[in-house]
Amino acid sequence: MAFRYCRTIRFHETDAAGVVYFANVLTLCHEAYEAALGEAFIDVADFFSTSNPLPIPIVHAEASYFKPLRCGDKIAITLAPLRLTPYSYEVRYTLTYQQSGQQSRPETHLLTQSLSAAQSQNERPLATALTRHVCIDKTTRQKQIIDPRLDDWLNEPAAIAAPDD
Amino acid sequence: MAFRYCRTIRFHETDAAGVVYFANVLTLCHEAYEAALGEAFIDVADFFSTSNPLPIPIVHAEASYFKPLRCGDKIAITLAPLRLTPYSYEVRYTLTYQQSGQQSRPETHLLTQSLSAAQSQNERPLATALTRHVCIDKTTRQKQIIDPRLDDWLNEPAAIAAPDD
Amino acid sequence: MAFRYCRTIRFHETDAAGVVYFANVLTLCHEAYEAALGEAFIDVADFFSTSNPLPIPIVHAEASYFKPLRCGDKIAITLAPLRLTPYSYEVRYTLTYQQSGQQSRPETHLLTQSLSAAQSQNERPLATALTRHVCIDKTTRQKQIIDPRLDDWLNEPAAIAAPDD
Amino acid sequence: MAFRYCRTIRFHETDAAGVVYFANVLTLCHEAYEAALGEAFIDVADFFSTSNPLPIPIVHAEASYFKPLRCGDKIAITLAPLRLTPYSYEVRYTLTYQQSGQQSRPETHLLTQSLSAAQSQNERPLATALTRHVCIDKTTRQKQIIDPRLDDWLNEPAAIAAPDD
Repeated sequence: MAFRYCRTIRFHETDAAGVVYFANVLTLCHEAYEAALGEAFIDVADFFSTSNPLPIPIVHAEASYFKPLRCGDKIAITLAPLRLTPYSYEVRYTLTYQQSGQQSRPETHLLTQSLSAAQSQNERPLATALTRHVCIDKTTRQKQIIDPRLDDWLNEPAAIAAPDD
Repeated sequence: MAFRYCRTIRFHETDAAGVVYFANVLTLCHEAYEAALGEAFIDVADFFSTSNPLPIPIVHAEASYFKPLRCGDKIAITLAPLRLTPYSYEVRYTLTYQQSGQQSRPETHLLTQSLSAAQSQNERPLATALTRHVCIDKTTRQKQIIDPRLDDWLNEPAAIAAPDD
Repeated sequence: MAFRYCRTIRFHETDAAGVVYFANVLTLCHEAYEAALGEAFIDVADFFSTSNPLPIPIVHAEASYFKPLRCGDKIAITLAPLRLTPYSYEVRYTLTYQQSGQQSRPETHLLTQSLSAAQSQNERPLATALTRHVCIDKTTRQKQIIDPRLDDWLNEPAAIAAPDD
Repeated sequence: MAFRYCRTIRFHETDAAGVVYFANVLTLCHEAYEAALGEAFIDVADFFSTSNPLPIPIVHAEASYFKPLRCGDKIAITLAPLRLTPYSYEVRYTLTYQQSGQQSRPETHLLTQSLSAAQSQNERPLATALTRHVCIDKTTRQKQIIDPRLDDWLNEPAAIAAPDD
């Protein structure tokens, strides 16, 4: 399900070139992923801890950068998960400015919303990213079927893909 | 003026001991400082950039840690600035859990509020911190009088100290 | 030219899952890139500063993760640049453990060395990554030809690709 | 025992003000602490993991900043531990430039050396810091006596304090 996470860029995320350090864009995306899991009633402290017997680590990540982000910028990260196999999924992220004319959306009021075609055309992204995740047994590191408690989050038809939204 | 900033602890802020890495507590505090400056109509992008001719860098920072912070924890950082000299000020920070029974407060709805003695007694802090700042000329690195645009923020009697609030 | 950078994984690079946080792998790679530029007599302070009129920012980055990295692990990052156009280049990175039986190689004794086929077969990577860079005019953000001072670094036939090394 | 750790400042450690972000100075110091423990034959992966039954977390940290650090700067961190009680110790850190006229010292060739009074007078520090640590039971969080395997490291008279070294 598509999910929107809003954030203000902070000073520690910038570097001496005056803009957000490239790897921190992936960190921002992971924050949005954590927020999305939280909204889906996943306990993130357990989910990401060493005591989780079936962790779902990232096996691949990538990001493309279109415009620099500066300290104080108010950005929105829209993400949608996509199940790849019984063992794996991908999350795709789009970073935009929070739209002018809209109330800044608070971090903890995380809107789960469909994105109209109009909206996605109007907002040219600042960056895009994806993370690919595979569920493994913590001890053997063999592939495992993803915990069904994630099914709702993974299987719900992503509003973002609805043709006539 | 006392200021309250709310945040969810994110995975990248933790370390292999399962809790927030000690230096990241100071980063959380600086985020709260940035949010407070933003509320006081300071343009943080300019304020923290290399092109600011009169930066106010941190000359001393410290933190005391009372309880570990975990991924997903919802914390509040209360801060109050204190002018030390015409050239310098200190900011003191207190980290607590966001109070149960209260609505989680959004990042961007940053409440500037007085803190009653009752509240400060009820919430044992997770950590405390301070940062000390001195205004300098960027080129000569000599002390300079702080920009009067910060006066409102610095001079207003801190609600936190009001005895009968 | 292929370049090797050695590093010990530090505690702040790990997360609550007990291993290096995924985005930090790209940070480790960028450290190796900085070290390689330094060896090629590029002044990294100037190169990465806001005052560089022709910066070469990252437009794309990706990483694949094969094995987790832990605090204290001694790793080697081998990188080789590849010019793509007059305006752009790519850097590819391979992370391995520093080989047992070898002296740990110090950070500042950065060996520029060819990698034999044998060596690359013996060491299964921990992770691989790439960064893609485009030279732009800082003000107009239009593509620019890369500073010829980088030519030596970019054009030298990468020892890593030499068939009969 | 006094210990010296050398490092090149990396781009990700800087911020939009063009210098090392203040909290990262404490991270640099912790790296030096990890290196010192490693030299004292402590397994840092175990020492800092959640499975350590007697962790020694930081309860207080502070840093004072005298000069800005820039990308590419080659710095040395000298540290010395001081036992405070059977349960606690403090580590004090001094950051200087690596001395000109000296060979740059590699990260992994970590010299344990006495510092002459002359040397400490000649090098004005860039920053100083301290961290205070208390050994606790992981479960009860009650104070515990520090593992005697740290005794050598903690008890050896610090060469730095020797008057006629």
